[in-house]
Amino acid sequence: MIYLDNAATTRKKPIRTIFEVIKALTLFNANPSRGSHKLSIKAGLKVLDCREHIKKFVNAPQNANVVYTYNCTEAINYALLGTLKQNDHVIITTFEHNAVLRTINSLKEKNVTYSVVTPNCYNNITIEQIKPLVKPNTKLIVVNHTSNVTGTTTNLKPIGEFCKTNGILFLVDGAQSAGHEKIDMENYNINFLALAGHKGLFGTQGIGALVINNTEPNPIKFGGSGTESENPNMPNYYPDKLEAGTINLVGIMALDGGISFVEKHQEKINKKTLKLATKLYGYLNQNKNITLYTSCIKSGVISFNLKNKSASDVVNYLSEHNVCVRGGLHCAPLAHKNLKTLNTGTIRVSISYFNKLTEINKLIKLLKKIA
Amino acid sequence: MIYLDNAATTRKKPIRTIFEVIKALTLFNANPSRGSHKLSIKAGLKVLDCREHIKKFVNAPQNANVVYTYNCTEAINYALLGTLKQNDHVIITTFEHNAVLRTINSLKEKNVTYSVVTPNCYNNITIEQIKPLVKPNTKLIVVNHTSNVTGTTTNLKPIGEFCKTNGILFLVDGAQSAGHEKIDMENYNINFLALAGHKGLFGTQGIGALVINNTEPNPIKFGGSGTESENPNMPNYYPDKLEAGTINLVGIMALDGGISFVEKHQEKINKKTLKLATKLYGYLNQNKNITLYTSCIKSGVISFNLKNKSASDVVNYLSEHNVCVRGGLHCAPLAHKNLKTLNTGTIRVSISYFNKLTEINKLIKLLKKIA
Repeated sequence: MIYLDNAATTRKKPIRTIFEVIKALTLFNANPSRGSHKLSIKAGLKVLDCREHIKKFVNAPQNANVVYTYNCTEAINYALLGTLKQNDHVIITTFEHNAVLRTINSLKEKNVTYSVVTPNCYNNITIEQIKPLVKPNTKLIVVNHTSNVTGTTTNLKPIGEFCKTNGILFLVDGAQSAGHEKIDMENYNINFLALAGHKGLFGTQGIGALVINNTEPNPIKFGGSGTESENPNMPNYYPDKLEAGTINLVGIMALDGGISFVEKHQEKINKKTLKLATKLYGYLNQNKNITLYTSCIKSGVISFNLKNKSASDVVNYLSEHNVCVRGGLHCAPLAHKNLKTLNTGTIRVSISYFNKLTEINKLIKLLKKIA
Repeated sequence: MIYLDNAATTRKKPIRTIFEVIKALTLFNANPSRGSHKLSIKAGLKVLDCREHIKKFVNAPQNANVVYTYNCTEAINYALLGTLKQNDHVIITTFEHNAVLRTINSLKEKNVTYSVVTPNCYNNITIEQIKPLVKPNTKLIVVNHTSNVTGTTTNLKPIGEFCKTNGILFLVDGAQSAGHEKIDMENYNINFLALAGHKGLFGTQGIGALVINNTEPNPIKFGGSGTESENPNMPNYYPDKLEAGTINLVGIMALDGGISFVEKHQEKINKKTLKLATKLYGYLNQNKNITLYTSCIKSGVISFNLKNKSASDVVNYLSEHNVCVRGGLHCAPLAHKNLKTLNTGTIRVSISYFNKLTEINKLIKLLKKIA
């Protein structure tokens, strides 16, 4: 089976990730920071270590807080629902995922409005595109760092600088970029960084994180925090304020292991991904029956369509031949509106470090047969 | 190390659970129901199987829906925040966890009010205690099936019947009871059953479930559902309506394995837990320097205090001798208010099937030394 849907979930995990899962389930298995016995403390210290590791990985300022979440979607929900109030305005990009779109749309009743930045002629989101959309009530700018549809990566630094200068909060959706692109929270002036554990960071499903800097979102879920049990509200400090109920130690340790793997092999990961993506891109780009929607291939995400076939037919054909790629809208309808593929969707190939050149060659061979 | 904090998280997991985790991370690892390729479908079908398994385990009606959550707290949040509206009234018991208390308290601005049922002279919550508290605007009754402080188990059937007759929704917090007590959603007329994966069901942390019958809560989080990507709202059917973003396949399969273990060994689990709990209870009950707060020991939860020592001193002493039990308020302040232990907390021992008699004997020996 050839799996090329790694932008959904990286299929193959490093041994390090599996090892951390086993360790979590055998050596560390207790409720972190619930109670004062040795094993709870041991689990709690491990969780603390992992928070610091994430902060270091994304160069978060010393005072930033890492909040563990169920997934990247929840991290984005925390940032948006925890921050936006009556009559606020938000700027988002065409590349935003439904994690952003549906969440902002749920705030319609509070008269939260939004403007959408479309890319320039080079398919890039730049600060020049954003500036004209700013209103006096613009509270937040949301930028998808790397698009899960086209692989387009946005240059965050100028946007972060603009946000800082203008007192606007900056939320970055790092779901697809983390593990591929450098993320520097301090340097890019990011207030909220949302991360997925199970994609380029090679952790498991069931864990994500919101790194919070210089802002104080309200909770959207409520429950035991292991602290201030008598307080009828969530404690007024982070991460406790946003972490209701038992956190996922297995997922946290797996993510920690995955990040260690990425740190150690970042150069090799980028080189390999680019090599395989370049091979596929080379074929797709020279075929007149193929429409390509991707120009930036660094993250290994490539979207295209065959001119005379529906995306779903191609995906099904490939699946029958044991090649797994994803068709459809990839939960990002505005990106498709912009690409004019809202009716058809796209075929998306997403490559991981663990894919092989022979797998890409087989995919190309099959595409040649039906293109 | 002797671990007796299993009401927080069962430390030792059955081989079956570990096996399912490894299977999930190697054979099934894909994004369930995102895309139409073979591996996504395989993962999606597995998730569907697990939903049916949970329904069967709790005897949920055919039309009930299983929504996967991050933890039991999130399941309770979905039920409460997704249901309660302006001016609604809720009845809860003294045994409720902060997952219930803090969530209802967060609805103060909507003028959601609540009444608290205190147990009768036998420390039981009965329908007779509940009836006088019902108001015309009572929307929901919340009952903690088994208290995580005292182990008290409430008889659900009469309460469910009353709810059904009076058009009141019935939410059961099964965090501590699942895996120990029979839960029969159909027979007890339960509308919402909240479950924790990592306690008596022997799954991992990072997974819980809300089983929903005959009611339609609104979402509290928003994002990709893998369905209706163009819809700016969550799809209007369950479980999709409440499952925003990638779900935790590893946790789901682990929970499935844990439930299989419980189903196979339920009788042995109950017998062993009762045997060990009886041994400990026998000692605690005859010692005049010990105040016992537990009368029902079936679930293996026993709370007590030493008359001349603080709970934290005892917990620390035991921990120094490699025995892990939990002290404090256990995130359930009303239970302590009722027990008059709000200032002191209690020492809580919670026993799992995997504990041994020798471990209980060692605990008793240590308690004898300091009592």
